[in-house]
Amino acid sequence: MSSLGVGVSPGNVPVYHGSKLKVIDRRVRVAELVLRCLICGLAIVSAVLIVTDTQVREIFTIRKRAKFTDMKALVFLVIANGIAAAYSLVQVLRCVVSMIKGTVLFNKPLAWAIFSGDQVMAYLTLSAVAAAVQSGIIAQFGQTELQWMKTCKLYAKFCNQVGEGVASSLLACLSMVLLSAISAYGLFRLYGDNKGKSSGGW
Amino acid sequence: MSSLGVGVSPGNVPVYHGSKLKVIDRRVRVAELVLRCLICGLAIVSAVLIVTDTQVREIFTIRKRAKFTDMKALVFLVIANGIAAAYSLVQVLRCVVSMIKGTVLFNKPLAWAIFSGDQVMAYLTLSAVAAAVQSGIIAQFGQTELQWMKTCKLYAKFCNQVGEGVASSLLACLSMVLLSAISAYGLFRLYGDNKGKSSGGW
Repeated sequence: MSSLGVGVSPGNVPVYHGSKLKVIDRRVRVAELVLRCLICGLAIVSAVLIVTDTQVREIFTIRKRAKFTDMKALVFLVIANGIAAAYSLVQVLRCVVSMIKGTVLFNKPLAWAIFSGDQVMAYLTLSAVAAAVQSGIIAQFGQTELQWMKTCKLYAKFCNQVGEGVASSLLACLSMVLLSAISAYGLFRLYGDNKGKSSGGW
Repeated sequence: MSSLGVGVSPGNVPVYHGSKLKVIDRRVRVAELVLRCLICGLAIVSAVLIVTDTQVREIFTIRKRAKFTDMKALVFLVIANGIAAAYSLVQVLRCVVSMIKGTVLFNKPLAWAIFSGDQVMAYLTLSAVAAAVQSGIIAQFGQTELQWMKTCKLYAKFCNQVGEGVASSLLACLSMVLLSAISAYGLFRLYGDNKGKSSGGW
């Protein structure tokens, strides 16, 4: 990791000075890399836990197999996890390349792209987790008024593993939320006191 | 609304100059006020639509009344809407006072509070909407594998009004997402090129 802390990029490059800012920048970049790796790992773990989950029960001589595709919210969660893992992997590579090169993000279009991507991923993973938790609550406790039965009474082992998968997704989602704040910092500090040099779209 | 564009606040006050920044700041503040009013209105409309929704059906001589408390996700959505409306109202008052006084936000703790509040509200409303949509999809299409029946076949009028309420919430949620980006801009631009004067927690 370079300790130069000097930006080399096209576009609008504000003057970058102050060792305190350099230290902050380095910490933020390390935090970003750690979080992106964490999200990638957690999203893969969650997807694997859910996809490989299955349980067979015999109810009045009828064999029934529970699998994640029975619950549409879990299919959505697996897809969201897949997208989050792939996106995080690309971002990890970008972080590593930027660290090796020692460049600092002063490129507004790139900062906008990262910010938008992180925001979309945070909202996507959160909505997938919320939908899965909602389905999970119905499966666990039922909704007698609507005649939706407690499926988890029959498939306890299946539900436990799904619960672990959802918990893993929730951690990935919280990391994504934190990361979207970091990328907001990375973008909007470029709109600080930059003496009218900005050509941003605001 | 003041056209001075000069911040009067305790704490770290970066030098504020450039008419372009003044124009941007004014636009951002107007957008913020409009969005906060919109969220307040939409959240109230959504909560009223859902809470007042009811339908009575007679099934084999048994009278059954559908109401929003039958579906836990709708109760969560109404609570989230109530919180969003109250929060937005407080923020609208703050925006109006700040516009009348002509002050510009250069107070980091306040900017952090607004940013955090907006983030929490965006994620809260999104998870409530996602959970309600998930329940709505189950009610509309059923989930035969789990023996969850299509409740909307019986209570079509009830489901339609809930749908309108959820749509209103979704619009409020999207406005909240936009607003949380605006407050991120309001906060993190204070961490721009401020010549080491910052005392922020990064």
